[in-house]
Amino acid sequence: MENNRTEFTMIQSVMLDDANDTLLILDQTLLPNEKVYLHVKEMKDVWDAIYKLKVRGAPAIGIAAAYGLYLGTKASKANTYQELQKDFIEVKTYLASSRPTAVNLFWALNRMENRFLQEAGKTLAAVKEALRQEAEEIREEDERVCESIGKHALSLLKENWGILTHCNAGTIATAKYGTALAPIYLGQEQGYNFKIYADETRPLLQGARLTAWELKEAGVDVTLICDNMSSIVMKEGKVQAVLVGCDRVAANGDTANKIGTSGVAILAKHYGIPFYVCSPLSTIDLECKTGDDIHIELRADEEITSQWYEKPMAPKDVQVYNPAFDVTDHSLITAIVTQNGIAYAPFDESLPKMFAQK
Amino acid sequence: MENNRTEFTMIQSVMLDDANDTLLILDQTLLPNEKVYLHVKEMKDVWDAIYKLKVRGAPAIGIAAAYGLYLGTKASKANTYQELQKDFIEVKTYLASSRPTAVNLFWALNRMENRFLQEAGKTLAAVKEALRQEAEEIREEDERVCESIGKHALSLLKENWGILTHCNAGTIATAKYGTALAPIYLGQEQGYNFKIYADETRPLLQGARLTAWELKEAGVDVTLICDNMSSIVMKEGKVQAVLVGCDRVAANGDTANKIGTSGVAILAKHYGIPFYVCSPLSTIDLECKTGDDIHIELRADEEITSQWYEKPMAPKDVQVYNPAFDVTDHSLITAIVTQNGIAYAPFDESLPKMFAQK
Repeated sequence: MENNRTEFTMIQSVMLDDANDTLLILDQTLLPNEKVYLHVKEMKDVWDAIYKLKVRGAPAIGIAAAYGLYLGTKASKANTYQELQKDFIEVKTYLASSRPTAVNLFWALNRMENRFLQEAGKTLAAVKEALRQEAEEIREEDERVCESIGKHALSLLKENWGILTHCNAGTIATAKYGTALAPIYLGQEQGYNFKIYADETRPLLQGARLTAWELKEAGVDVTLICDNMSSIVMKEGKVQAVLVGCDRVAANGDTANKIGTSGVAILAKHYGIPFYVCSPLSTIDLECKTGDDIHIELRADEEITSQWYEKPMAPKDVQVYNPAFDVTDHSLITAIVTQNGIAYAPFDESLPKMFAQK
Repeated sequence: MENNRTEFTMIQSVMLDDANDTLLILDQTLLPNEKVYLHVKEMKDVWDAIYKLKVRGAPAIGIAAAYGLYLGTKASKANTYQELQKDFIEVKTYLASSRPTAVNLFWALNRMENRFLQEAGKTLAAVKEALRQEAEEIREEDERVCESIGKHALSLLKENWGILTHCNAGTIATAKYGTALAPIYLGQEQGYNFKIYADETRPLLQGARLTAWELKEAGVDVTLICDNMSSIVMKEGKVQAVLVGCDRVAANGDTANKIGTSGVAILAKHYGIPFYVCSPLSTIDLECKTGDDIHIELRADEEITSQWYEKPMAPKDVQVYNPAFDVTDHSLITAIVTQNGIAYAPFDESLPKMFAQK
């Protein structure tokens, strides 16, 4: 099938238009009702896009910030490297304030700073050009990681399978392809004819608003279900594999991901369906021994009681419990798919080997 | 604790104000934002309340229809039993058209007709009074059934337990107490200090709009969660039992109930938490051998994509799968609680015995 690729639309979240140094950012807050690309030339608009969640997904945020740091530095009127460095640090500090809990944001900004320091002695134009290249490399590297995860994960899947996914680990959260959705896009190119079931993913509805949208845009056969329908679609034989992304993987394979993921994993185990976690190596934290060490963020009640609704859908002042993530026990996970290959249990042995490979 | 009952507010869905023959119907379409009782004196308003889902829940619909048939017949200007019978049948046919798929509606209307036939020969005033009594008896009988289910179920629970429930099987769906919520109300009267977790129950949000509301009104400690959070509250040790109602129980114990119930049952089994189904005998269908014989209704896409929302939360024309119910396998059910006692596996032996008792 490799030679029988079909062309299809692949949405991208962040990309630089080289012709006029304009950053195109897909405004995810308008999805699924409007598909609007912001045309951004100034770093303050990048800050705004990150702050207002117009760009979301850890890799996509990092990429946007890197381009923002390039655009902000390019605009500097400095005449010396030292003056430029002062402006660079100012822009970096400013962009870092856009979403203070996003690890990928700092990782990308620091990588840009390392490049800036390496370019000392070059002309200012060359330094600025190097920053553009570095941002581009961050984007390209993420795309390669995602594509590689996709290829490995695709080797676990068969034609015509039904695949269930939870939340959004798709192309719009990354440079391209996504993590959990990468094998679906690669399979789509190669005629696998997958049938995808997207959990809507309450309370923030990333499955309905984002996953169903981006798969539909790419012509993938996607069906939207409520979170509580994953049991019936499995029971009815509609699902042959589950694919999810992750926010953090511990050394023993315990995986933190969007709330509800652990429930899907338990159902998959009950029905004898393989459950695959797609994870870049950067998301695997070998310092974190087990899922017990992962802090679960509690979020605002309004996300459940009133957000999106015409009027509140729960009684006033009702108690609410709104954890943003849960931890899926490693015993429920069939395999963890990285860009360097597929890790199976025992994960405390297989995961370190993934870092050694290449 | 029996002698230490505390008074609390118990919402009722339908009741007759004897003083002026006015039917009070809680308008459930306005919940949880407004608590409004309709004051109904004419059968067409009863028809309207059933048709527009202002009254919902199988027992509550039957009770409302019975009172409607009384009110409609009372208004008749007939001078003979035969004339009154003609009017009675007209009202009955009219009310039966309000919700043609509701089995309890027809059951209640037929029971009223049997009473009407029994009263042949009496004065017309006496016939009308008999209809009022029959409607009242239907309501009182449902209340006794619910209270009895509640007492049996309460025997399975311990003080200070956390209890998870799905959808709404509460007082507003019945005459009083509900089925799955009956032991919670009885426990509340007796100081059990339960902590209830109510699944919001997508797509129609009966858990958020109705269960959380009626429990909060009664002063019960209730916490609202999204459906996909039932795994984490179980894992965190917050839940010691699951209580659900049901739409139909097969002879082998397989149970159809609101979509998502089977998933909760699988999670409960995984975490070693007992899963109890509360069912009036009228809901147990021994003619139905297994859950495979139960037809699952598919409902409109819009319930998932746009209902309640300010604007659509899913891409236009996305494929949707929206089953209203699922079937929980009998192997996942710890016990089925009826008004005549508690049935344990094997259910094909224990359920028939429930009908023999009393």
